[in-house]
Amino acid sequence: MMENQQDWVAVDWGTTHFRIWRMHGDKALEGREASCGLLSLKREEFEPTLKEHLHGWPTESPVLMSGMVGSRQGWQEAPYLFLPVSLKDVAIGAVDVQTKDLQRKVHVLPGVACQEESRPDVMRGEETQMLGLGAGSAEWSGMICLPGTHCKWVKVALGQVQQFDTYLTGELFSILRQHSILRHDLEAGDVDAEHPAFAKGVSTGFVESTPLLTSLFRVRASSLLLDRDPVANLAFLSGRLLGEELRSATQNIEKTEKIQLVGGSSLTKLYARALSLVGREVDLHSGDDLVRHGLTAAWQFLYPQTE
Amino acid sequence: MMENQQDWVAVDWGTTHFRIWRMHGDKALEGREASCGLLSLKREEFEPTLKEHLHGWPTESPVLMSGMVGSRQGWQEAPYLFLPVSLKDVAIGAVDVQTKDLQRKVHVLPGVACQEESRPDVMRGEETQMLGLGAGSAEWSGMICLPGTHCKWVKVALGQVQQFDTYLTGELFSILRQHSILRHDLEAGDVDAEHPAFAKGVSTGFVESTPLLTSLFRVRASSLLLDRDPVANLAFLSGRLLGEELRSATQNIEKTEKIQLVGGSSLTKLYARALSLVGREVDLHSGDDLVRHGLTAAWQFLYPQTE
Repeated sequence: MMENQQDWVAVDWGTTHFRIWRMHGDKALEGREASCGLLSLKREEFEPTLKEHLHGWPTESPVLMSGMVGSRQGWQEAPYLFLPVSLKDVAIGAVDVQTKDLQRKVHVLPGVACQEESRPDVMRGEETQMLGLGAGSAEWSGMICLPGTHCKWVKVALGQVQQFDTYLTGELFSILRQHSILRHDLEAGDVDAEHPAFAKGVSTGFVESTPLLTSLFRVRASSLLLDRDPVANLAFLSGRLLGEELRSATQNIEKTEKIQLVGGSSLTKLYARALSLVGREVDLHSGDDLVRHGLTAAWQFLYPQTE
Repeated sequence: MMENQQDWVAVDWGTTHFRIWRMHGDKALEGREASCGLLSLKREEFEPTLKEHLHGWPTESPVLMSGMVGSRQGWQEAPYLFLPVSLKDVAIGAVDVQTKDLQRKVHVLPGVACQEESRPDVMRGEETQMLGLGAGSAEWSGMICLPGTHCKWVKVALGQVQQFDTYLTGELFSILRQHSILRHDLEAGDVDAEHPAFAKGVSTGFVESTPLLTSLFRVRASSLLLDRDPVANLAFLSGRLLGEELRSATQNIEKTEKIQLVGGSSLTKLYARALSLVGREVDLHSGDDLVRHGLTAAWQFLYPQTE
């Protein structure tokens, strides 16, 4: 097929963020962003919000959206596609959104889910980043790591998502830091991935030389008994949780295979460092670019230009 | 030595609770309790609080206290004794508390700590319960499990604490329940230890068929995809965390050895059930009684009645 060179609008609409681009074919002509994520909107506010951000742009070009906007709590549900699922099916599975005032087509991409009773899991948004990585093509195979509050590890074979696992690592770190007894012993700032305590945490978690639930209390005990400082404690805790994740997430990946690490969250640097500490090589990708590239790839599948 | 049959006062003074008994030798004649724990008191309020609760009791009999009252944040610090430590040394290591108005002796028992760089750990209060179990005698050996916000597993050999580990299990359950994304999917009431999902959680954690950080997110996914109800989710999460703890805590205990389970916290029923699910037998002890028995044992060491 030929590539579609029409005008259209790409939207990445998540839980807390909103980004929108005016597109011409695969080129972004203009971009806007705002903090009007899902959590700050009632259902009837989605359409006016989109309309507001389309202001001054061509009035008829269609819109393709991705992210939590398509969840049950979003504007209109685009039901999950179930594994195994080709990334091309994600693109083609876009759902038409019912609009009231907007005089244009609005589509939203579905999420992907594993409905197996033994390993239920969901993603919504990450599938678009994978499309942007080229993972929609029937030649693409690899392992993708998408850090975030809920980090995803996704196995793609020949353009098909075969399996994925979500790790609550980021959220757990955050609630331990804010709400547990450890909060008194942890530095308030960013994690220093170069601190020796980070490396120690990663290796403790990676070989599980101490069980996680015990490691956590030892952060407290280290303060009380060994005067370990809050910067070291924070680095250790972060490394300990990442090491725990990597022990499991990397166990079925060949040592020689590069991991496709999707960057952009503040966690990326920590994942890159932790992966290097356990002897893994990565290809690093910009998460921001991937979303737009993914929406573009989906667009080409949805609106193929026929001669 | 002969047993001391004098009048004295036993006090268990923790982070949130306060219990006091008027004792004659090893007999409790009267008991009182209040919620004036460490967290609700300034340093200068400890003595007036104790005085208030001694009201109407013999004015000269000495007081022996145990618990967080002896921590750095308490009334007066009784520094930790370091491993390996005999439980008799805990009794003898009682520190004299400086008083202003009280015209009697006041002692507080020290906590126990492991200062090894590779496994720092602390306890304060649990050592008294172990004394109450008889673990102070040179003939006593065994493995003791003390459930709580921070569960302790303690190995005692011939009256000596040789090693112990603290697990953050209870606190982690509580903060996940209150502060994580899982809170929407969890029943607000008590955990049902007889629910099949509890057993499933225990076995998943015990054999680690799914890594913990993934299991946590699957609680959420189960709600979304499999309509798993909040009662089952809560039971699974509780079982999953306990299974994780037991996998590590029981690995070096002979299958034939009974575990000494100290009861009293609301968690005891869950630990008893989980231990039975993984094929372990327990002797169950009342935690409340053990504190008083432990203070009594310490008292006999401190004030031996000589003929």
